[in-house]
Amino acid sequence: MDKNDYIFGIRPVMEAIEAGKDIDKILVKKDLNGDLINELYDLVKRYRILIQRVPVEKINRITRKNHQGVLAVLSSVTYSNLSNVMPDIYESGEMPFLVALDGITDVRNFGAIARTCECAGVDAIVIPERHSVSVSGDAMKTSAGALNYLQVCREHSMQGALNYLKNNGCRIVGASGKTNKLYTEVDYTVPTVIVMGAEDTGMQPEVEAVCDELVTIPEYGQINSLNVSVAAGIIMYEVVRQRKKI
Amino acid sequence: MDKNDYIFGIRPVMEAIEAGKDIDKILVKKDLNGDLINELYDLVKRYRILIQRVPVEKINRITRKNHQGVLAVLSSVTYSNLSNVMPDIYESGEMPFLVALDGITDVRNFGAIARTCECAGVDAIVIPERHSVSVSGDAMKTSAGALNYLQVCREHSMQGALNYLKNNGCRIVGASGKTNKLYTEVDYTVPTVIVMGAEDTGMQPEVEAVCDELVTIPEYGQINSLNVSVAAGIIMYEVVRQRKKI
Repeated sequence: MDKNDYIFGIRPVMEAIEAGKDIDKILVKKDLNGDLINELYDLVKRYRILIQRVPVEKINRITRKNHQGVLAVLSSVTYSNLSNVMPDIYESGEMPFLVALDGITDVRNFGAIARTCECAGVDAIVIPERHSVSVSGDAMKTSAGALNYLQVCREHSMQGALNYLKNNGCRIVGASGKTNKLYTEVDYTVPTVIVMGAEDTGMQPEVEAVCDELVTIPEYGQINSLNVSVAAGIIMYEVVRQRKKI
Repeated sequence: MDKNDYIFGIRPVMEAIEAGKDIDKILVKKDLNGDLINELYDLVKRYRILIQRVPVEKINRITRKNHQGVLAVLSSVTYSNLSNVMPDIYESGEMPFLVALDGITDVRNFGAIARTCECAGVDAIVIPERHSVSVSGDAMKTSAGALNYLQVCREHSMQGALNYLKNNGCRIVGASGKTNKLYTEVDYTVPTVIVMGAEDTGMQPEVEAVCDELVTIPEYGQINSLNVSVAAGIIMYEVVRQRKKI
């Protein structure tokens, strides 16, 4: 991690929160107690920032400086809010096209998917607060700058976010190995959200349950294991193909 | 590099060559001379193995053991020969589908492309001897085993290989940023070779010149930079879509 990607020490972290810095998450040494740390917790709660209690070794791996057991990982992007993004898309007259990533933790895959989203004209990426990649400097680098042009909505619950999108007129289409329906057999000319799950385990069951359609990419070999960023690209460009009639 | 991926020392390397081991390339310390090394050169010439004269530091980075200035990088796959592969494909009654990679050097991209090839039912990958990734243990790992099921043809000249394929009835379709023709506008229901160039510089001009068609993937954003393994996946699955009528 680049040293521009984090802030350490209780007071500097609290100041960063109050200054409105975009914070990806805050790591706090497991057994840390005291008045100041309680103050930090109040602040974190008020600003709805993700906090993780971790063994001190985890923080030491990021910096050996005097971090006092508190380190904030800064975000490289300013997160957007779905409830602002959706009205903006509809007002622009565009046909909504979003990509939701449920449990993508590999930064290179995330970067490649962000690049494809930017190229395919996706309006926003939706990620969950937990069990997701950190949108830090590394993600920005692997995205080749795409994250500068894309809206990223980090939502507390993926299930809640998808239900919100569904209620706002979107068809939720999840990539899954558990269906025979091909990714080419769905009409994407309506407002669409493509959901991609984790490489190993796929979507969470409660996320899968929200989907209007599950689709699969046919595989003709022995290994049945497309890379998730490649699979996302194939489905996104099927959306493009249908919408642009190319 | 895993220690199972290489052999070092002049005599062990010569024995490996004579034993018919699949060798990716041999690195020889720049200023190495003598009878034994001349014998090695004769052998390398006879078996048509790629040899590179490198600064000793490059070999030292792979192993600090007593390599005597000679190290052979073993291949994780047994290379196939295009002149054997093509008759086999035609005899099998399949419609030939090959992917040629001109200058892909990133092992993760190569692995992801190999996975997609295996899933899309590609018959063989063609790579050039030089300016290409080494198909070593790392490539096998990133391919998630796909390289166990795929034929890889390593050809002396990419231009020569593509001309051979053209003369054997294949349409050579190269991905390029220099055309307006969309990747969906080509008929892939004939014997087809998809050519992908290097991420930064694209195909070599002499390789581009051999192509029957140049195609592009439309991009609607600011960065215009799909990852090469994603781009390869999008085009390969357009071939699948047309052929399988999905």
